[in-house]
Amino acid sequence: MKAEIVAVGTELLLGQIVNTNAQYLAEQCAAIGIDVHYQTVVGDNVERIVSALSIAAGRADVVLCTGGLGPTLDDVTRDALGRYVGAELVMDAEGLRKIEAYFAARGAVMVESNRRQALTLAGADVLPNDTGMAVGTALRHEGKLYVLLPGPPRELKPMFERYARAWLRANMDGVQPLFSKSLKFAGIGESGLEHALLDLIERQEDPTIAPYAKEGEVLIRLTSRAATEAEAFAKMAGTEAEIRRRVGDHLYADEDVSLDAVIVRLLRERGATLAAAESCTGGMFADMATSHPGSSEAFLGGVVCYTNGAKRVLLSVPPELLEGENAPGAVSAETAAAMAEGARARLGATFAVSFTGVAGPSPSEGKPPGLVYMGVAEEGKPTETRELKLSGSREIVKLRACRAGFYELWKRLR
Amino acid sequence: MKAEIVAVGTELLLGQIVNTNAQYLAEQCAAIGIDVHYQTVVGDNVERIVSALSIAAGRADVVLCTGGLGPTLDDVTRDALGRYVGAELVMDAEGLRKIEAYFAARGAVMVESNRRQALTLAGADVLPNDTGMAVGTALRHEGKLYVLLPGPPRELKPMFERYARAWLRANMDGVQPLFSKSLKFAGIGESGLEHALLDLIERQEDPTIAPYAKEGEVLIRLTSRAATEAEAFAKMAGTEAEIRRRVGDHLYADEDVSLDAVIVRLLRERGATLAAAESCTGGMFADMATSHPGSSEAFLGGVVCYTNGAKRVLLSVPPELLEGENAPGAVSAETAAAMAEGARARLGATFAVSFTGVAGPSPSEGKPPGLVYMGVAEEGKPTETRELKLSGSREIVKLRACRAGFYELWKRLR
Repeated sequence: MKAEIVAVGTELLLGQIVNTNAQYLAEQCAAIGIDVHYQTVVGDNVERIVSALSIAAGRADVVLCTGGLGPTLDDVTRDALGRYVGAELVMDAEGLRKIEAYFAARGAVMVESNRRQALTLAGADVLPNDTGMAVGTALRHEGKLYVLLPGPPRELKPMFERYARAWLRANMDGVQPLFSKSLKFAGIGESGLEHALLDLIERQEDPTIAPYAKEGEVLIRLTSRAATEAEAFAKMAGTEAEIRRRVGDHLYADEDVSLDAVIVRLLRERGATLAAAESCTGGMFADMATSHPGSSEAFLGGVVCYTNGAKRVLLSVPPELLEGENAPGAVSAETAAAMAEGARARLGATFAVSFTGVAGPSPSEGKPPGLVYMGVAEEGKPTETRELKLSGSREIVKLRACRAGFYELWKRLR
Repeated sequence: MKAEIVAVGTELLLGQIVNTNAQYLAEQCAAIGIDVHYQTVVGDNVERIVSALSIAAGRADVVLCTGGLGPTLDDVTRDALGRYVGAELVMDAEGLRKIEAYFAARGAVMVESNRRQALTLAGADVLPNDTGMAVGTALRHEGKLYVLLPGPPRELKPMFERYARAWLRANMDGVQPLFSKSLKFAGIGESGLEHALLDLIERQEDPTIAPYAKEGEVLIRLTSRAATEAEAFAKMAGTEAEIRRRVGDHLYADEDVSLDAVIVRLLRERGATLAAAESCTGGMFADMATSHPGSSEAFLGGVVCYTNGAKRVLLSVPPELLEGENAPGAVSAETAAAMAEGARARLGATFAVSFTGVAGPSPSEGKPPGLVYMGVAEEGKPTETRELKLSGSREIVKLRACRAGFYELWKRLR
């Protein structure tokens, strides 16, 4: 089953925004077993959209459009599809009621053009918009499937995941759809995971096992063809159990969630607190830890100490570690340990994590870029340190060091 | 003059990567006066690329392709264009010499397939690749322009900016190309800028004046049609002088560079140093300050103090400011001032900036999300504070507060 994604919007043609919707829909199609063969971007112009629809329907079975469903005069995607398939625009009563209720609740005057957002096509199924006003449209016409989705990602994604995906699966005549499940890993690289699961990956048939790497986090996607999600998950169960048996020590979630979000949740559940002492990561670890609502319940604070003076003053790192002929230096396991202990003691936290190293691009203290020492101090336990040899740009080295810190915490909190 | 952008790559169709190249090329085309009417994505398949080229040439004057110029068998974009226009593949001697030299310098064996990267088409102009191996191709054929560019952004952008742009401008028969100049502003919103420049914007003809806003930074792009860049800049000079006269107080750069990069450069030039005291921004300010190579010469360190205890212990904020019936509280100008002074004194920095506020999404201490107090302490000067009322998500509030901090520094450093 072949699909084409048609993104509508002049702002895309001007390069004012990046077409993340096409990437999202392409990934979603692949996940349910629909192959995307082309993507097109076209401006807010009825003739050109009709032309793009005609080319798309000529080479695909499914045409997924995004954008151009809003209230303004240049939102013409539904008009274009109506003209192309010869279907009339009709008002969706439920969609209109929701729009009217929205304005009534705010005591605001509803401009007539807002009614346009409840328009769909005669004979089509309506896809509700739970996070906005414009309804979606799903139409089967002469053996082809057409789906119209809104452009704003915060409307597009819920509409696809709650309504369009099921509609597509139900309309994939003669092809069983795919279902998939994500397993997230930390503290192990893509190649390490592949090595541990090589025989499973090599003899995979159904479910398939695909690893994806993203800057220090690895995701494994199990995918199976089945009539229903429950049936697919049942087919995956044996493989998942075997993966857990082999590399469960690194498996931190069975959904696509970040490790820092999991750590903040675990800390809150345990009533534990966290502090940070950052040299080379420059505040990135604290920034990640505080990027989740409610993180102030778990994250007490941190110190960014870019100089030896700052390490002494803010964290009481002993001067003899930092300076002198035989001193280990700022970039050392000893200093990492002292930093973590200093931060934990000063802030009274359950845990403190420290980073000191060379973010790059140049060496420092004669030490190479990517060399990072990490310390983890925990109440009532001896402080531990790790030596990390990281590669990548300055930003990537910072990010990988932070992820390694969250992984150390996860091993203690799980 | 109409263009179509054709991005080639199966990883785009699978949604594994976002098509940032299309956004980049669309923006670049707009900047030189070429209108993009369609964008297409197609996989690594000769027949489908030929079909996409045929459709593109049927509706555009310029076809810009990106991707599929590498050494592997599925890199077939140049083969597809050769087949479509009926031109033979020919080896670019200079490109081949560079590839051979690369392998020789590393003592590595050059696999035969690497020669493919020096292939271009008979009758085409070669676009050198200064940051990679695959040469680009620029071809005029039956009145249409075809440009083949590499897929990796770090190869695409230099090739476009150094070679393809000039080639396109030189081949825009009968149309004068556009040239533009970016002015970057801080401490003023898009609407404030528009208000100050309204009469200029309303009577604009050549140069045109277009404001763009991006999370706390505003860019104004002046654009002019001319035969050469020097001629275009001469046409802009009067308008630029008038803009500087009106809002020069907010103009921090005449190129598209971030304010934090400018601050790190200014601090280094002056031999001045910076410290940070962050509550609601959670380390983001330090992370931004340390994201530039060489920032360790200017940024001494910072403190992330998410709790009252951390503010007291790490920054000596007096307890009577934080707790008690008549205390101003953690989110107050008084606390912001004490935080900035504490950080400056502890670290011995020339400047310290502090942030305390409510990042959201929920209120805190009965204060609304988006309320942020900022303090700026400077050696030998009285400490100043600002009250900010910011809107947006948690991440946006953090980012806007940080940008406001860099703006205060810029006012003192310029």
